[in-house]
Amino acid sequence: MATGKRVCVIGCGNWGSAVAKLVSENAKRYPDFDDTVRIWVLEEVFEGRNLSEIINNDHENKKYLPGIKLPHNLLAVPDMKECVQESDLFLVVLPHQFVHSTIEKMKQFGPLRPGALAISLVKGIELTGSSVKCFTDAIENTLGIPCLALSGANVAKNVAMEEFSEATIGYKEKAHAVLFQKLFDRPYFKINCIPGVAAVQVFGAIKNAVAIAAGFCDGLGLGSNTKAAIMRIGLKEIYKFSCKFFNENSQDVVFESAGVADLITTCIGGRNVRCAAEFAKHGGKKSWNDIEREMLGGQKLQGTSTCEEVYHVLKANNIEAEFPLFVVTYKIAHMGADPNDLIREFAVEKLEEF
Amino acid sequence: MATGKRVCVIGCGNWGSAVAKLVSENAKRYPDFDDTVRIWVLEEVFEGRNLSEIINNDHENKKYLPGIKLPHNLLAVPDMKECVQESDLFLVVLPHQFVHSTIEKMKQFGPLRPGALAISLVKGIELTGSSVKCFTDAIENTLGIPCLALSGANVAKNVAMEEFSEATIGYKEKAHAVLFQKLFDRPYFKINCIPGVAAVQVFGAIKNAVAIAAGFCDGLGLGSNTKAAIMRIGLKEIYKFSCKFFNENSQDVVFESAGVADLITTCIGGRNVRCAAEFAKHGGKKSWNDIEREMLGGQKLQGTSTCEEVYHVLKANNIEAEFPLFVVTYKIAHMGADPNDLIREFAVEKLEEF
Repeated sequence: MATGKRVCVIGCGNWGSAVAKLVSENAKRYPDFDDTVRIWVLEEVFEGRNLSEIINNDHENKKYLPGIKLPHNLLAVPDMKECVQESDLFLVVLPHQFVHSTIEKMKQFGPLRPGALAISLVKGIELTGSSVKCFTDAIENTLGIPCLALSGANVAKNVAMEEFSEATIGYKEKAHAVLFQKLFDRPYFKINCIPGVAAVQVFGAIKNAVAIAAGFCDGLGLGSNTKAAIMRIGLKEIYKFSCKFFNENSQDVVFESAGVADLITTCIGGRNVRCAAEFAKHGGKKSWNDIEREMLGGQKLQGTSTCEEVYHVLKANNIEAEFPLFVVTYKIAHMGADPNDLIREFAVEKLEEF
Repeated sequence: MATGKRVCVIGCGNWGSAVAKLVSENAKRYPDFDDTVRIWVLEEVFEGRNLSEIINNDHENKKYLPGIKLPHNLLAVPDMKECVQESDLFLVVLPHQFVHSTIEKMKQFGPLRPGALAISLVKGIELTGSSVKCFTDAIENTLGIPCLALSGANVAKNVAMEEFSEATIGYKEKAHAVLFQKLFDRPYFKINCIPGVAAVQVFGAIKNAVAIAAGFCDGLGLGSNTKAAIMRIGLKEIYKFSCKFFNENSQDVVFESAGVADLITTCIGGRNVRCAAEFAKHGGKKSWNDIEREMLGGQKLQGTSTCEEVYHVLKANNIEAEFPLFVVTYKIAHMGADPNDLIREFAVEKLEEF
């Protein structure tokens, strides 16, 4: 009779499936966890079969993570009630727009088991009006259980292919992090843990706005000196943003995968950079819609909406002046400013105070 | 009658010439500095004329920085005695192997003027036996004047072309940094100042060893998750190295151009990365000499010798275990270890303590 914690992944997109794979591997290895790992599937039909059936019979998420074999101890469960009532550890891996509705649905099947914990792998934060909120808070408040955060320089497919990667867990209670580190850490997926849950999420979300600025550099044909400078200024502004809105030490995360490493990969490659380069190449005259249609088959960019939301939060708090990169990036992306303003903003006579 | 400080650039390679250009621009703008800026030229003949004559007549360093017009207030001076005796601010921009001989020569023409100051733009640190020494110390000790340090994500040619860049000045006395910031800061070359001179130099030197490891990732065909992880581990090891050998706060520099920005550009592009990728592609079986001959026309890589020197310092201090990336990079580059060991070193079962 197993006495280990029972794990449930909430969300079966490509990142959810990649994560489900690796935690299932660990659930089998450690007596701390029950062998069976559940993954909640919002049921849909793919190639004539239910997605949960595909996962359970073929041990592959053919829709969202094709080509990757999933462990046999991973059980796809479309029944949210079973997931909620039979699990101790909830790994929330949802697109940000589905978090609230999903956790409200989870709550209906509560109360959760004593000692239950959650960890958010949601990419994003909530920027509305003048407030900045973390999804960990929404999860804690709605489900009434502590919630940690995990983020890092992680392309889902490459993690699923067991290419060496790192990630960062942010925690409030060390004992919780010890448990989740054990659940997530694999030789190909190394976990560092740091105190504080907000900065990990802030970096994971706002890096996308910096990637838009980095893409402008590429599109303007600027060299590595300039792009590195813009990335550095972006790193400092994310850090400052995190300190401003959250009362925790945000400095640790800079050294971690969720900080500098994720920023680097996001600003070097990826869709935000490529599309922003295209935008700048056309002097800001080509619409994001057109770019998204041509380059992403109509999918939406994350970075453009992030930089809009960030700007409005800064404005509502009357602190635009402290975040010149975020502001100029917004003005170029959404207000018709000349892409060359990106550099003009910083190429000034004024000496930096110190 | 000018009462401003008289500036002298020691070294007229491409970085020295680019720096001479920008400080000459500022010398003309600010009364704090004498209009005339000297650049000490180790005289040589280029296309049938003396290099100093070319610079003074054509206002271009046709050998080391061709295509860039130099300001008319920049005076090339082959006479070291004149340089030493007529200057208050010395900008040392020499290849590291010429620093000691040059400052010894300068000393012969001393004592230097009262209030004289130096700033080192030398790339590198001195790693010999168990000791790690900064060139700022050598300059201070030999010349008997305070010495600051400047470093950053700066490709010389791009700075000369006035492409937007940033750099970092490390100082012990704030008043000195105020003066040098004024001398160096241009709209296209923005200067931040931080306390401490060692970390700025350590990052500038040791980043090259990390670039070798980053190049191995490329050569092994590993993706962005892995390369970002290796760069992050490298950043942490440089930081730790700096803390270990120098009694100053090294954390500030991480956020600056001399820290994260320089590391990014060095690990993304550049000769160390390209050559190390070639080395790993051939499983470490192709010699560095062959690679240097084919890819660099016989010029020597900095990163390979840096990682050798770093390793020997770690070994002499019996602290190899704390720097796994530096050690494995050395073993692959110089001891015949399999390039795949780079990842094997970190892809382990052991959980990271926190």
